[in-house]
Amino acid sequence: MSAVITLLTDFGYRDGYVGVMKGVIAGICPTARLIDLTHDIPAQNLAAARFTLLNAYAYFPEGTVHLAVIDPGVGTGRRAIAVQSSQGYFVGPDNGVLSGALDTASDLKAVELTATKFWRSPQPSSTFHGRDIFAPVAAHLANGTDLSDLGPPIALDSLLRIAIPQPQITETKIVGCAQHIDHFGNIITTIPAAAVGRSAWKMCVGAVEMPLGKTYGEVAVGHAIAVVGSHGWVEIAVNGSSAYARLRLAIGDEIQLVAI
Amino acid sequence: MSAVITLLTDFGYRDGYVGVMKGVIAGICPTARLIDLTHDIPAQNLAAARFTLLNAYAYFPEGTVHLAVIDPGVGTGRRAIAVQSSQGYFVGPDNGVLSGALDTASDLKAVELTATKFWRSPQPSSTFHGRDIFAPVAAHLANGTDLSDLGPPIALDSLLRIAIPQPQITETKIVGCAQHIDHFGNIITTIPAAAVGRSAWKMCVGAVEMPLGKTYGEVAVGHAIAVVGSHGWVEIAVNGSSAYARLRLAIGDEIQLVAI
Amino acid sequence: MSAVITLLTDFGYRDGYVGVMKGVIAGICPTARLIDLTHDIPAQNLAAARFTLLNAYAYFPEGTVHLAVIDPGVGTGRRAIAVQSSQGYFVGPDNGVLSGALDTASDLKAVELTATKFWRSPQPSSTFHGRDIFAPVAAHLANGTDLSDLGPPIALDSLLRIAIPQPQITETKIVGCAQHIDHFGNIITTIPAAAVGRSAWKMCVGAVEMPLGKTYGEVAVGHAIAVVGSHGWVEIAVNGSSAYARLRLAIGDEIQLVAI
Repeated sequence: MSAVITLLTDFGYRDGYVGVMKGVIAGICPTARLIDLTHDIPAQNLAAARFTLLNAYAYFPEGTVHLAVIDPGVGTGRRAIAVQSSQGYFVGPDNGVLSGALDTASDLKAVELTATKFWRSPQPSSTFHGRDIFAPVAAHLANGTDLSDLGPPIALDSLLRIAIPQPQITETKIVGCAQHIDHFGNIITTIPAAAVGRSAWKMCVGAVEMPLGKTYGEVAVGHAIAVVGSHGWVEIAVNGSSAYARLRLAIGDEIQLVAI
Repeated sequence: MSAVITLLTDFGYRDGYVGVMKGVIAGICPTARLIDLTHDIPAQNLAAARFTLLNAYAYFPEGTVHLAVIDPGVGTGRRAIAVQSSQGYFVGPDNGVLSGALDTASDLKAVELTATKFWRSPQPSSTFHGRDIFAPVAAHLANGTDLSDLGPPIALDSLLRIAIPQPQITETKIVGCAQHIDHFGNIITTIPAAAVGRSAWKMCVGAVEMPLGKTYGEVAVGHAIAVVGSHGWVEIAVNGSSAYARLRLAIGDEIQLVAI
Repeated sequence: MSAVITLLTDFGYRDGYVGVMKGVIAGICPTARLIDLTHDIPAQNLAAARFTLLNAYAYFPEGTVHLAVIDPGVGTGRRAIAVQSSQGYFVGPDNGVLSGALDTASDLKAVELTATKFWRSPQPSSTFHGRDIFAPVAAHLANGTDLSDLGPPIALDSLLRIAIPQPQITETKIVGCAQHIDHFGNIITTIPAAAVGRSAWKMCVGAVEMPLGKTYGEVAVGHAIAVVGSHGWVEIAVNGSSAYARLRLAIGDEIQLVAI
């Protein structure tokens, strides 16, 4: 069975850029199955793209090629890389967009993309490496090309990482912050499920308090609740509505779990 | 030939949720062909999702699996169901989202999804059954799993239905209402094509009158016209522009056809 | 290997219209690989659709079928056409939407779509030829149906064209205009790469001057630069931001390259 290639960009849905990358892939690996993660990452927002890839890749079959093109430094000296792991391949610029996935995947091997014979042409454009380098390389990986053919190995500790603030955890209080706001207005925090364990907590957002429960429906419609979300992070929701509209938290704003 | 699976959600296009469901499907049924209906259903708007599925499913090949995840009651007591019909399968929560399709499809058999071996894991999350129950079940149906293996049969008349107001039809007047506003601003009414027959009518929206014609181009650019739309419902359009922007009808607002 | 079919419409992402076209295609050509160019062309904006198709089609494999449904005249006398070229097939209304591609593709043969046996039914709706004529015809072409079976040949010089203003080129000055604004706010001009050759130029937009360089990163973040974009046109960008937000150019507004 042919490989899956996922696509993650900040190209939006108005232009033909994503279609063009898929056309290039279709020409090199006609059997690839293409699945969009999203193309609506805010322009050049590496942290949002890192979050999306980190929380999605593990749900794909082994051998999937994950292609991430959020590339504000295109045409400058930033490296183009591909990384092999037990969970699949990651292809993109070395600017941190892959780093959430790389921090959690296992058995990593990384190379710098220098072998121009796997590019669309030896002279790529200065502004669209998604089309000219990353999409062709992803398609060749889907075709079974060996990672080591794509370029020289690079040290894993040289890869650029985007770090998120680590929550401060004690037995009676966990201090974290908002790390993502989703389409429903759910506020995903930096507190992982493991941190809350089996204890009982309440969530405090400024002066607003709410229970830490299991499902949105445990509170009445219009009321706020914290739950361990499907990503594996504690998130804040309002039943039937938007927590973001209610609480107006920005990414990085502090939130606290307090033991009860 | 492998089955088609359609996807209909209110997850939007900004997050990785839809991609994650597709990743889960790709792991279970690698040959499935995935087609999006839309993911831009307004959050938790069951009526809009019901309308979209009702007006789309009949255009897909026999055996298509239609997956609809608009699920405000996720994690509560609402049932998860799958329904087999002559036209294909329908998978989703028992909250009315499937009911337009089920009211018009034939030879229905319904089951409640309780056989956890067809889920992603026996302990699904409390907030994302799309990923943990519905997507895996849709993939197993696409693989040929028998409906009856997914759980116990349930009575068709126990399924939750969303009803739309029936138009009042006489020989000289048909009173209906707006049931959907599309991307172009066309206003789709609750009056079916069959109700207008071969008679001549004018459309009355408050004090505004317009002809019931056949194509948008029968009136000058910028003028309003009613036509029997491609869905099989009478709809109101403005040639080259948006009827919604002109008439500002809300869903449920009354409109009338008057014989001429 | 089965054919690729690309889809380009102004149907948006909220309704089921695109999904319905794909369902019709899946019923006729189950092996077709479907790739979206975009469905977010502004309603009835033939120029924007022409630009998108023109700049995308060449990146797809030979034999790809490009389906473009931006069709303000649906149901009126405008012709429905299919065109074969060395680069692939083009299917859509004869209203100029295909004309950018047809002006640059080679070995063209065109037919008018009149053979109703390749339509969804001999009596198409008056408002959705995408579903009833264009999608079925694209699927039949993907299945290997001969172009000449679809209808009678038509003269290439009878096809409706949308022309863009040609830039005025001298050795010291090139006067063009904005022809497209992309998702990033990059302003794509009507000046082709070939016009700038190896000379040195500065870009003048009203009183604002900027260098013509190679990559966005040649200027500091927040500064404007002109580059030869990935489409092959000179474009205006702001490093890390939106040139459109800065310069507020409208389509058709004049810009100049002046030799330095």
